[in-house]
Parts: sequence; C-alpha cells; structure tokens
Amino acid sequence: MSTTSGSSTETKSFARRAAHLNPAGVRPAKEGAISFDSGHADPHVLPDLTEEAKAALSVHRSETLQYAPRPGLPGLRTWIAAYMNDDGVSGISAENILVVNGAKHGLELVCRLLLDEGDSIVVTSPTYFTAIPIFKSFGVSFIQIPQGADGLDADELARVLESNQREGRRLPKFIYDVPDFHNPTGVTMSRERREALIALARKHGIFIVEDSPYRKVRFEGSSQPSLKSLDNSGLVLTLGTFSKLLAPGLRIGWIAGPQDILNRIVQLKSDGGSCPLTQRLIVNFGNAGRFNAHIQKVQDVYRTHRDRMLDAFRRDIPEFSTAVPHGGYYLWLTLPKNVDGDALAELAEREGVTVLAGSKFFADHSTIPARSGSPKSYIRVAYSHATPEQIDEGVKRLDRAFRSMQSHAVKANS
Amino acid sequence: MSTTSGSSTETKSFARRAAHLNPAGVRPAKEGAISFDSGHADPHVLPDLTEEAKAALSVHRSETLQYAPRPGLPGLRTWIAAYMNDDGVSGISAENILVVNGAKHGLELVCRLLLDEGDSIVVTSPTYFTAIPIFKSFGVSFIQIPQGADGLDADELARVLESNQREGRRLPKFIYDVPDFHNPTGVTMSRERREALIALARKHGIFIVEDSPYRKVRFEGSSQPSLKSLDNSGLVLTLGTFSKLLAPGLRIGWIAGPQDILNRIVQLKSDGGSCPLTQRLIVNFGNAGRFNAHIQKVQDVYRTHRDRMLDAFRRDIPEFSTAVPHGGYYLWLTLPKNVDGDALAELAEREGVTVLAGSKFFADHSTIPARSGSPKSYIRVAYSHATPEQIDEGVKRLDRAFRSMQSHAVKANS
Repeated sequence: MSTTSGSSTETKSFARRAAHLNPAGVRPAKEGAISFDSGHADPHVLPDLTEEAKAALSVHRSETLQYAPRPGLPGLRTWIAAYMNDDGVSGISAENILVVNGAKHGLELVCRLLLDEGDSIVVTSPTYFTAIPIFKSFGVSFIQIPQGADGLDADELARVLESNQREGRRLPKFIYDVPDFHNPTGVTMSRERREALIALARKHGIFIVEDSPYRKVRFEGSSQPSLKSLDNSGLVLTLGTFSKLLAPGLRIGWIAGPQDILNRIVQLKSDGGSCPLTQRLIVNFGNAGRFNAHIQKVQDVYRTHRDRMLDAFRRDIPEFSTAVPHGGYYLWLTLPKNVDGDALAELAEREGVTVLAGSKFFADHSTIPARSGSPKSYIRVAYSHATPEQIDEGVKRLDRAFRSMQSHAVKANS
Repeated sequence: MSTTSGSSTETKSFARRAAHLNPAGVRPAKEGAISFDSGHADPHVLPDLTEEAKAALSVHRSETLQYAPRPGLPGLRTWIAAYMNDDGVSGISAENILVVNGAKHGLELVCRLLLDEGDSIVVTSPTYFTAIPIFKSFGVSFIQIPQGADGLDADELARVLESNQREGRRLPKFIYDVPDFHNPTGVTMSRERREALIALARKHGIFIVEDSPYRKVRFEGSSQPSLKSLDNSGLVLTLGTFSKLLAPGLRIGWIAGPQDILNRIVQLKSDGGSCPLTQRLIVNFGNAGRFNAHIQKVQDVYRTHRDRMLDAFRRDIPEFSTAVPHGGYYLWLTLPKNVDGDALAELAEREGVTVLAGSKFFADHSTIPARSGSPKSYIRVAYSHATPEQIDEGVKRLDRAFRSMQSHAVKANS
C-alpha cells in the first residue's frame, strides 16, 4: 500500500494481526517431495460420492442449490445427534448441533463468542499448531499445561487455577484439548483425567472445547468416553468434522453444545448457511448405510500406514523415539539430545521430505513448562497422506538429513 | 448456563455481542406464507449441475474431496480474474483473487483485517441489512450517508470527511457500498459519483468495499464501470459471489484486491480452504460454456418477476411509490405518510405474506440523515423467490394488511 501513507488502515492492531498470522508452517511441497507434514487424506480412502451427488443435484436441487438454514440441514443435524448418541452422549438432539464449515470454522466461532483481547485460555503443551494462530488473532495469552501418557495433567491445571484464584486473577475463558489421538502427540486421555478435567471445569465455571477429529480413526483397543458424554453441566463444546470421517473437501463440521450457547454462535455465523450440497451428500451417504464400512476402511488403511512408518523408523532411525499412537494421523518423534528439530525440518525439505518442526506446536515459547521438554527436540510426521512406498522412501530421506547433521556435529567437535 | 454463575464467560463484551446479534429479521415463514422477504433464488433458475458433479467427483476426486489451497483452486481464481477483466478491470490476475465461502464471509474477513473496536465506517442510509450485524459485532460506529437516484452522495461524504479531518478525528476505516442495484433501494450509482468516490478514497487513504452481487442481474440498459475498474490506487476491495450468478447453495464468493492485502486476509481464513467440490462445479460449468446462457435466463426470469410485481403494486396499492430498479431482486417501497412500515410488516405476516420493514436497513437509528427519511416509512419486497402467481397473490395480501391499517386509522380519527 505504498500509495496510502497516512491511511486510516495503518493501526497498531492491523500490524499486530498481520505479524501473528504468519502462514502456519505448511508450504507447497517441491516437485517430487514426499509430504509428511500435512494431515491430508490418503486419496485411496476418498469415497465415491457420484451417486449421492446425482440425487443431491436432481431430487434435492431446490435444497442443495438454495441458501441453507444457518444452523444446518435438519436431516444432518439429526444424523449427527444420533451419531453422538451412539457414541455415548445421552440427551443430545438436533437442537444441540450447529453445522459449520469444518472444525476450524467451529473453533473460530467459539473464539468469536467467548474471547476478548487480553483473555487467557488453557492449552496443552504442545498443542494443535493450526489452532495457535486462530487463538492469537483474538489477542489471548496461554496457560500451557504439560501432558503425560494419559493426557493433559489435570492436577497441574488444578494447581494453576487455584493459584489464579488466590491471586485474584481472571480465570481462563476455556480449556482447549484434543483428548483422542491428540495432535501432535497421539496421546489419548485416560478416563480418570477426563473426569478430573470435567470436575475442574465445573468447579471454576470454565468451558471446555473438545476438539476430536480423529476419534473414529482408531486402530486397536476401545474408546474412552468423550468429554461431552461425561459432562452434565453444559460446559463442554465439542467440535466435530467430516474431514477425517469422510473427506476433507466437504468442508462440513459441527459444534455440539447447549442450545443457548449455539443460539448465540449461530448469530455470529454470518455465512448464509453452510453448503447445503455437501451437507446433503453426507446425509445421503449416511442414509445409504455406507458409513460403517467406510470408517472400517479408513481404520485399515491408516493402521497399515502407521505400522509401515513405525517399522521404517525402527529400521532406519532407531535414534528417534516415539510412543505408538493407537489412532490418528501422526507420530510425534523425540530427537536425540544434540539434534535441533527446526534445523532437521529444513534439511529434510532439501532432501525431499517435508516434516513439521515440533517448535510450531507450542503456543508461547516464553512459558513452556519444564516437563514439556525443549520445543526444538521434536518433529511431527504424518503417515496419512503418503503411500506405503513413499513412507519408506520418506524415512530414508529424513535419515539422510539426520545423518548429515550428525556428521557436521562430529566434524564440529573434532 | 444457570449452573455457571460466576463463570469466566460472563463478560461485558459477551453480553454486548449477543445483544447486537439479534437474528437479522428473516424468520421461517408460516405454512402457506408467500415470501417477499428473502433474496432466495427462484428454484426454476437453479441450473442442472449433475454432469459437472459427476466429473468433479470422479476425474477430479483427489482434488474435490481433499483439502483445497486456502486462496482457492487455481482454475477458479484464473476464471474469476478473466471474468472481471471482461467486465473492465484491467491488469487483474489470479493473484488478485481470494476465493471465500460467499460474499458475507468475504465481508467478515475484510472486517477482521481492518476493523478495531471503536472504529467508524461509512455506509449508505439505508444499507444492506445483513451486513449491519456483521459490522456491529466488530464494535464499530457508522457514518451514514444519504443516497439519491444516482447513488451515494459523494459531496456529502466529502463534507463529512473534511470536517472529520479539521476536527482531528480519526478517519473511517472503509466505505461500504452496493453500487449496482443497491440493496435495498435498487439504485445504481452514476459514473460521476463513482469517480468522485474513488477520488475521495484516494485523497484520504480510505478503503472502499465494493459489494456487487447483482451486477449481472440487469434487465435493461448498460453497466456503469465497476468501482474496481476505476481505481488504480489499490484501495478498492471488491466482493463477488456466485450466489446470484449461479446458485446460492454453492457458497462460493471472492475478494478481489491488491495481492499484499489478500496475503494478509488469507491468513485469517482459517478454514482449510473453501469447498473444492463446489469450486470445481463452477469451473466445470464455466469451461462447458454454460455461463452466458445461464445469466441470460436469470435476467429474463427476474425481469418478468419485477414487471409482474410492479404491475401488481400499480394496480392494487397505488398509494405506495417506488423507483423502477433496472436489475437486482428488490423493490424499495415508500409508504404513505400515515403508515408505519414496522407495523405493516407485522400485519402482512398475519395476512400470509412476509416483507421486510425498512427500519432494518438503517445501521444506526440515532444518526440517520434527514434526507434519508424516516426508517419506518419504507418496506423492502423481493420479487426473486416468489412465482408470478405468488407475486399477484402476495401483493393482494399486503394490500389487505395495508387497508386494515387504513380503516383502523380512519376509525381512530373519527
């Protein structure tokens, strides 16, 4: 805007927002690069929706090409309520479901309703990296809580909230977590910790934002109850999405929560309704009874991918360690002490494989709890998008990047 | 939230946002009611997209069901740039186009980038009623400028801006207008006023947000140059949409503007890309050469609707006056002196026809310019959605509502 010096647009917050919102780490990959960085779907699990579309665009044309009701198509809201009911959430109905343009849109709407500049929120350390710039654009600060093998440390959170209260500081606005196959760590929160978290939220009157895109992408074992299913105080807002259940391109997700909260959020959803065509595709897919078989396929494909990637790391880079995730899309790798994750991610890209530096997953580098470790000691790799052959080749490329760092280190030390 | 007294969510701004965002006037119509209130499309002009969808979901499946690039599908951005180029905007390319989930989403993103609590913006008086709660949710105040038969009064705006400057007050962040077939008034801004507006924006360094959904829904005469085509200083952000061009249900629109601005806005677009399926449907529709014939059909159908409605009002309620709009979806009716538009809208609904009270279209009732008239002296009726037969019947019902008010008034006076 070189022609507009003195323009009224050059405000402090304009600059602040722009500065915070650096593109969130995923760059377009170079030709021939193998992508371990993004949570894209394996193209082979994308379903054939041509029959659903034919019906949606003929029989249902005056619905699918018209403005949709802002809360979502009644048929889809009912379907989602039944789906959550099957998943253990009792007393939920269509009125508790707001259809949105994907879970990130749901998160943004929740933020628009609840957050004011200067507020704080609770996140795990590390947390879902794409959520971080959304939170920052609302001008919040972060209370970062470490995790163990059984999820967010509720005892630590209890101590922090007590101390907040003693010192008369304002409570955080909400607790954000991915309790199932956490992004990036793959950890699933235990039932005990879930119950402790709900009790804490109730005690202090704090909302919980339960973001659970991977819940059905389970490879073994059985589910823990969702936070929503354990809550009877109306404090849990659950974000759901069809991106991992069906296809990311549909851009349909939902917020499940108390009706009075959704009635407020829908007024912030100034979009003329979410796309009725893709909503109808989902309803038709569900009504055709195709969901269960599809989810089975999703689980089978990504289990194979996970196993292939775990094998490749054990074989080629045993120096990296990881917990075995029982679902989801990602491995969270702890690097040997002398290896910088930021530098490794850069070198890997030059070798032709993209991974995400672990440091991107920490909301505020100045207040990371000691137990979370150094943000530079991790990388996140996705096994969702690459083919099994690409997984083998990608780990080999990552190994080359790692070995080149090692040899540099040896030379530097000699 | 009766269980959460003392909750951290009960902040001042939480209440403020909820209070501002009362549902924007469109209620679900009663059984059998004729709808003159909404800008829904005539179902008969919704195109058959089944062939486009078949290709989109088979040949293009790995694009249409995957996450899309956040700025939009390259093919669609190129198509839109060419479309705007044909419409007189020189030097525009795909990099100047950001695909969004409809024009309202585009408007919200522009607001998120540019607005801070306490800012002011310029709007016409009256203005597009759905934009008002979006603006209010950002905590802005309004500078309301009256319109004449040739659009926003640029001379009056010049005086206001000069006086702002003299008094050392901060300038408004942007000027929002619908220059073609203005919503609700149907007025199209003259070329002279467009040029004056651009000159003003350049002089003071203020953005113009040009919202032009109805530009191609023209029934006669020729177009004025778009504001974007007259601007060479990068101050015009144009909102476009396929809702009126093709179908509202696709939920695809765009922002056209300078690349550096769009690069910032795309970082606020935290949505995993707009729906690639509906984007691809539009590209396939365009590539099949179906656009021009479709727009011709849209023009023909709505011209017939407009004429039918004008005839009905002339025949049944000659007491109401209106300018004849040369395009768009709406008539803006001036009521006789003794008739209250709010009360008429309520009575009409009881008679089985929904219209919008004119008062909804004024952003701030405390500062309406005298020349804009009383907000209660207008109603807006849409001829887009109802069939010709419904148009006749709906005007008859409105007439009954009007006559019943008249007879009450006579009784009250006698």
